[in-house]
Amino acid sequence: MNRAARKQPSKRDLIVEEAARLFYERGTSLGVDVLVDEIGVAKMTLYKHFPNKADLITACLRYVGQRYQERLEAGVAAGENAGERVLGIFDSLREWFGTPSFRGCAFVNATIELADPDHPAHEAVVEHKLHTREWVAELLTEHGVDDPEFVARQIVQLMEGAITNALVENDPSAADVARATAAQVLDRASKP
Amino acid sequence: MNRAARKQPSKRDLIVEEAARLFYERGTSLGVDVLVDEIGVAKMTLYKHFPNKADLITACLRYVGQRYQERLEAGVAAGENAGERVLGIFDSLREWFGTPSFRGCAFVNATIELADPDHPAHEAVVEHKLHTREWVAELLTEHGVDDPEFVARQIVQLMEGAITNALVENDPSAADVARATAAQVLDRASKP
Repeated sequence: MNRAARKQPSKRDLIVEEAARLFYERGTSLGVDVLVDEIGVAKMTLYKHFPNKADLITACLRYVGQRYQERLEAGVAAGENAGERVLGIFDSLREWFGTPSFRGCAFVNATIELADPDHPAHEAVVEHKLHTREWVAELLTEHGVDDPEFVARQIVQLMEGAITNALVENDPSAADVARATAAQVLDRASKP
Repeated sequence: MNRAARKQPSKRDLIVEEAARLFYERGTSLGVDVLVDEIGVAKMTLYKHFPNKADLITACLRYVGQRYQERLEAGVAAGENAGERVLGIFDSLREWFGTPSFRGCAFVNATIELADPDHPAHEAVVEHKLHTREWVAELLTEHGVDDPEFVARQIVQLMEGAITNALVENDPSAADVARATAAQVLDRASKP
């Protein structure tokens, strides 16, 4: 849970929340002048909290990652067992793909937009992807599959493929295709 | 096969080839001034062939799509049957992921960078993705799977997921994970 959810959001929190939305919507190449104008904050205030744009992008990605994980966990909570919760990931994705603001994965987008694997924000991308993979591996361990680490790589790759498909082809049913594949992978991995 | 491979490349072909390389390397947001400078062509010549940047991006994507398909077909040609050729796609991807110039899928990158599903270049993206899917469906039909259309969606999604994984996590072994999943999908789809 981020600070904003616990107490009155700080100026910094408000900047991150708004900038994250704008970067997702229009890309991280969005200029600082447009940002301060849209957020309604003085440029000096922005620079006080984020001396350079890379810091702001990194903070936004961490904020988005936290919210993404919270949404994912809430989305699968109804599953009666770990296997159902893994498949529930794809139902949760399908719902997300159908929202008007959907524009792919913020982390993949940032990676592509920044076009530089040495950009400081890339660390937040790798952290996020690793975190998701570890969370899936925990569900798979609970489900009792052999080699949960490898199966987790299969599952997160299906998530990644579904997100990219849904974006590029503007087709939320990409989640159903991934769910069907995930069910086959789980079935195979659960056999004695 | 494009015109460049059949005869002396035209000025237009040279512009497309160079611009495609530069857009892939640095993103489609690359300015026209940088482009003409790097390509070594007069701005008027560029504008004569491509009245606006969207035309140039579209032409570059079509050129990249053609080369991508040629490379993919050549990469799987050694497979002894259609099933092996489908799995060979992932070996071909792995090789690509290991090249220094690899920076993900040019079509996905353009979609994300342009951040506008109504951008004229998006048509070339959708065409390319459909073309790949149809080619995979043909291989699957030849392999004798039930419902080749659906299985093709599974396979291209695995390709997409592998490409994104390999880019974001800078890890060519994403192709091996996708290959393992594809083998499971094929196995299931081939059962009587």
